[in-house]
Amino acid sequence: MELSNDWITGFVDGEGCFHVSILKHDDMRVGYQILPEFTVVQHKRDIQILHALKRFFRCGVVRRNHGDRWCFRIRKLAHLQMICTFFEKHSLKTKKNVDLIQFRRVVQMMTEKKHLTNEGMWKIVNIALNMNTGNRDRLLEIKKDLRTK
Amino acid sequence: MELSNDWITGFVDGEGCFHVSILKHDDMRVGYQILPEFTVVQHKRDIQILHALKRFFRCGVVRRNHGDRWCFRIRKLAHLQMICTFFEKHSLKTKKNVDLIQFRRVVQMMTEKKHLTNEGMWKIVNIALNMNTGNRDRLLEIKKDLRTK
Repeated sequence: MELSNDWITGFVDGEGCFHVSILKHDDMRVGYQILPEFTVVQHKRDIQILHALKRFFRCGVVRRNHGDRWCFRIRKLAHLQMICTFFEKHSLKTKKNVDLIQFRRVVQMMTEKKHLTNEGMWKIVNIALNMNTGNRDRLLEIKKDLRTK
Repeated sequence: MELSNDWITGFVDGEGCFHVSILKHDDMRVGYQILPEFTVVQHKRDIQILHALKRFFRCGVVRRNHGDRWCFRIRKLAHLQMICTFFEKHSLKTKKNVDLIQFRRVVQMMTEKKHLTNEGMWKIVNIALNMNTGNRDRLLEIKKDLRTK
């Protein structure tokens, strides 16, 4: 199956997700770990699409998500940078593009190792607050925690 | 906003829906009415995408679906034929293409007025049984009802 740039952009506008998780991690200098990821989730009947995406981008993994849902997932920073560059050339048309712009800032800051400082982590948490709608309370707690360090 | 054929195919692979409803309708000769429709549903923040689809296809309506969800919807038979022709040229890559092939058969049969006969309606209910997963029991009831007429 051959995928075109525009088809991928349309499909990711519908099904893609750019997400930044922030996890407690006592071994890290600032006490938290940043986990940015790009995912596309599909019912298992369309697993061949996930494998086609993996072939297209030449990176990522195809994994079971839960139940009948499978996902194509990219977590490696260098690969996420490549994904960001792809969608810079081939702009998303939905409001998901706003998430992507924030996501790109996080990936860039991590590439520059800024997440290893308290100040950089603080900025990243603020960016995540603009992206992820689900866990505002937790992110605000992390901000408070970083302030006291 | 300008949409390309491939972007639309990718987006519809993710977000589009080809659905055939079969409704009880005593005024109709065979007692049922067929309602095929093509829809794309989005959160209201992406309503501009729905309007862009409407402009692209030069048909359909943009309506509130429920709550914060809006939809682009095509119901007119001539316009559905045009949509089927578009996706014949620009094939969907997901298993949604299987639904589309069945959907196209229904639209074709309706264009040829075959749904106005008991036999045609029987065939369409069988096609719908291959497409719609949600209402099997009701469709089987309709088949039984058509048998007794």
